[in-house]
Amino acid sequence: MKMSKMFMPTLREVPADAEITSHQLMMRAGMIRKMASGVYNQLPMGIRVFKKIENIVREELEKKGCQEILCSGLIPSELWKESGRWDVMGAEMMRVKDRNDRDFCLGPTHEEVFTDLIRQEITSYKQLPLNLYQIQVKYRDERRPRFGVMRTRTFTMKDAYSFDIDEAGLDKSYQDMYDAYTNIFARCGLDNSPVQADTGAIGGSVSAEFMVKSEVGEDEIVFCSGCDYAANMEKAVSVNTSLDKEEMKELTEIHTPNVHTIEDLEKFFNLPANRFAKTLVYEVDGKTVVVVVRGDREVNETKVANAIGGAVEFELAREEVVRAVTKAGIGFAGPIGVEADYVFIDNEVAEQNNLVIGANKDEYHIQNANYGRDFEGTVGDFRNVTEGDKCTKCGSELEIARGVEVGHIFKLGTKYSETMGANYIDKDGKSKPIVMGCYGIGIERTAAAIIEQHHDENGIIWPLSIAPYHVVVVPVNIKKAEQMEAAEKIYNELQSMGVEVLLDDRDERVGVKFKDSELVGIPMRITVGKDITDGKVEFKLRDAQDKELISLDEIKSKIEAEFVKNNVKLG
Amino acid sequence: MKMSKMFMPTLREVPADAEITSHQLMMRAGMIRKMASGVYNQLPMGIRVFKKIENIVREELEKKGCQEILCSGLIPSELWKESGRWDVMGAEMMRVKDRNDRDFCLGPTHEEVFTDLIRQEITSYKQLPLNLYQIQVKYRDERRPRFGVMRTRTFTMKDAYSFDIDEAGLDKSYQDMYDAYTNIFARCGLDNSPVQADTGAIGGSVSAEFMVKSEVGEDEIVFCSGCDYAANMEKAVSVNTSLDKEEMKELTEIHTPNVHTIEDLEKFFNLPANRFAKTLVYEVDGKTVVVVVRGDREVNETKVANAIGGAVEFELAREEVVRAVTKAGIGFAGPIGVEADYVFIDNEVAEQNNLVIGANKDEYHIQNANYGRDFEGTVGDFRNVTEGDKCTKCGSELEIARGVEVGHIFKLGTKYSETMGANYIDKDGKSKPIVMGCYGIGIERTAAAIIEQHHDENGIIWPLSIAPYHVVVVPVNIKKAEQMEAAEKIYNELQSMGVEVLLDDRDERVGVKFKDSELVGIPMRITVGKDITDGKVEFKLRDAQDKELISLDEIKSKIEAEFVKNNVKLG
Repeated sequence: MKMSKMFMPTLREVPADAEITSHQLMMRAGMIRKMASGVYNQLPMGIRVFKKIENIVREELEKKGCQEILCSGLIPSELWKESGRWDVMGAEMMRVKDRNDRDFCLGPTHEEVFTDLIRQEITSYKQLPLNLYQIQVKYRDERRPRFGVMRTRTFTMKDAYSFDIDEAGLDKSYQDMYDAYTNIFARCGLDNSPVQADTGAIGGSVSAEFMVKSEVGEDEIVFCSGCDYAANMEKAVSVNTSLDKEEMKELTEIHTPNVHTIEDLEKFFNLPANRFAKTLVYEVDGKTVVVVVRGDREVNETKVANAIGGAVEFELAREEVVRAVTKAGIGFAGPIGVEADYVFIDNEVAEQNNLVIGANKDEYHIQNANYGRDFEGTVGDFRNVTEGDKCTKCGSELEIARGVEVGHIFKLGTKYSETMGANYIDKDGKSKPIVMGCYGIGIERTAAAIIEQHHDENGIIWPLSIAPYHVVVVPVNIKKAEQMEAAEKIYNELQSMGVEVLLDDRDERVGVKFKDSELVGIPMRITVGKDITDGKVEFKLRDAQDKELISLDEIKSKIEAEFVKNNVKLG
Repeated sequence: MKMSKMFMPTLREVPADAEITSHQLMMRAGMIRKMASGVYNQLPMGIRVFKKIENIVREELEKKGCQEILCSGLIPSELWKESGRWDVMGAEMMRVKDRNDRDFCLGPTHEEVFTDLIRQEITSYKQLPLNLYQIQVKYRDERRPRFGVMRTRTFTMKDAYSFDIDEAGLDKSYQDMYDAYTNIFARCGLDNSPVQADTGAIGGSVSAEFMVKSEVGEDEIVFCSGCDYAANMEKAVSVNTSLDKEEMKELTEIHTPNVHTIEDLEKFFNLPANRFAKTLVYEVDGKTVVVVVRGDREVNETKVANAIGGAVEFELAREEVVRAVTKAGIGFAGPIGVEADYVFIDNEVAEQNNLVIGANKDEYHIQNANYGRDFEGTVGDFRNVTEGDKCTKCGSELEIARGVEVGHIFKLGTKYSETMGANYIDKDGKSKPIVMGCYGIGIERTAAAIIEQHHDENGIIWPLSIAPYHVVVVPVNIKKAEQMEAAEKIYNELQSMGVEVLLDDRDERVGVKFKDSELVGIPMRITVGKDITDGKVEFKLRDAQDKELISLDEIKSKIEAEFVKNNVKLG
């Protein structure tokens, strides 16, 4: 492509609303433009990168025997009502009525559609296993779209669904996808880690997220410093750090005016935060939920939601609800005598004696509260991991990092096949539910994560595997015939080799051209300047400082060597 | 691909709701499955064909310098309000509100979005011309989805938009697209004709439809038997066939009880239909519109709508409206004394003397009515062409055929750039509106049109250029090791040549395998049977009766020759 003809509107300035590097650079490199909050259009430099990622995804999935299909993004509500998710999905799912007032949604995910397709076509174990995928635009009306294509309302997703006769088959399908994802993200040049994750609204038993560590990541990931344990914060567990048991003491009510927070309590009682239990009241889908964790801990809402079988709306209770549940204002809630639909007690609170708790009475706290003797509830793990907690697998310290989720794989089991009647006849003649898995990759978000890991102060540094173009040929002065002719000749020769090449034939200063090619991140640059009279050009890699004067007949081997080095197929 | 692993649910029976051949064969060949009325999912055999068409489109457009982008299908209403089309589009445009109650539509077409993108990035004549395209899912809530993927509510469309500094630039861009389309449809194996078309809701001055002649086509196309004139029925014109002028006679009112239709009138008056004028009353967007054409003619509603500057709802008037306009019941309307917002008189009616018309009085007609003397109205071409009419270009007879519209190209001019302020600064320093064109191809519909033109009683006969697979290798008996081994070897060798090949390794009778490969339309079949002991296999083309016994070392050259013959690149 000749850059004089190309639609590549680069920006010198950082757009005001772009907070993170990948968003800034995608805008500046002319890859994307915003049309509405969380809604982007993809320009030539963008779509070329996204398609490279898509093709890597296709290749790796097809190696595992996955087959591509394409389902409609407009989905009749009946399927979602059958699975029970029409009401569960909340405002994130965009809904639309057709001219006959029939309800549809814009697919945020496609479990129902694939299950419906399969139940109509699969009857026998002989037709299984099967793994079908699509690369398709998804719609999710995020409450707070942000960070460019990291969190948008429409985005391209590869979603795959596996169909097996039993759990052993699912284990193999899941492992195949795990391996395919590992290869995909490696080929995209991403340093990434699969972590255990919660299955959330998709459902199922086991799931893993592929996380790219990044300061701008929206998710917190917990890693063990001593073993391979890794999980996202929603799912992560740690060893309880309950204090040594001591003799139970007598309950004592203490007047604590103007003492509301754990910090206030620490000062008032002159005790560390782990001597207190804090009691939080939530409203969850119309029910009241009380959760008690130690004063130095945070409630893990996902674990709480799972304990009550899932939740759509999960909010801290309004003051009047807190008062109804605890008979006191906010700040004085405690587990003794609360009247809620659910009461959950974190393990550490249950294990520890003589805690200070709210008295459920304005301006009072209670000392020496003990689970079992003074209050009851469902005991379990309802807290977030804290940096320095111990790993439940090996006892080493846990670390917390931020990450960007680029892929997510789930063992769904028979959740959808049972509710929607997707069965097959097994060898023994019996009808059994198909065992399913599902597997997603966010295409644009993967590109953003790559930029987060591959950039410098001048712009993007694309890995060769997904660069929009491999090489840019820059004549220093397009008015000098010998430079322009040599540049065109190199351009044509590289094209015929199958190299994707840009010719910067714009009438601009060479400094502007260099800046643009660095901004958009083209891996190799060939500069045709005055040395062309000696048959020499300058060769420079985007990710290196060195420039090298090489002769014209070295160009081909130089470039081929880069393809070999980066393990990218040429042509 | 091994067929034992492939998700290719073929059907023996013709599905009950599939009326036309392409719909039947797409269903039977396992290419598509219906999810809701006008909403289809694409299975592996389908998506492979659709992607082949997409890639031909890409190649031919990029030869013309078009650049691919991808815009969001979810479009904020503000853009459509700016262009004035938010209200014009009617129920066909699906609308959706986001969680903040903001209006969006699901893009039925993208003029506004592309214009918006361009007005933000283009400032100077130096950045033009530009031609951008996308291949994307469109949403149109058709009143009557039918004929499989011929008329659906979601479909894949390639839409391109050109941006030029002036009309001469647009002429070139339009011609480039005209040529690209001609190449695209030729490469798809389609016998097609570009015809003049009405510009409709898209707007603009000139447009052409690429029509595939087919009995099942939803459109009527008018062709000249003597010259290259071709237009769709909405747009087609013919020479007026007014009768010779005669002396104007005196108006005479005749009692015509129970005479309502033109047929009734022909009998009653013993005159041919062309001696009558028929007067139709319409309600168009709340206005009353009267149209008068000769008794042997039909009203062309598109021409009428264009005469009043466009129409959304265009319906024959209800009886009470007819009575308000004509003072008589249906069947006795005439042009004398009607009171309507618009009165249109077809040229033939204006040119001809002494017509019989309705009297605007129940059970009465009037003889010897003459335009000018007895009634007035806007005179113009408001009728459909009839088979046998004369061509306005050359005088030869016009013929009428049915066709499927696979592409449509428009000269938009400055319709969108003026209303939306997409301007550029010209060489002379003046701000001018960008001159636009737009160009669409329906991907799935093109595939359906190909099937309509390429099939026999056994199934689809894909042109090599868009076949889902090029070759199927069929071992007659998979239990015979020598057949299966030879088949696998051929399969592997062809794959390494870049041939897309199926191995029918299913444990089925060979007749079943042949039936399937003919149904899905694979162009070449290699059957490995008992002759393999002599090193021979059977080679058969899908579109020929002959089978040929060839030796193993002839396979490669046989197949390569087909690629050359069909002008398809291998690998």
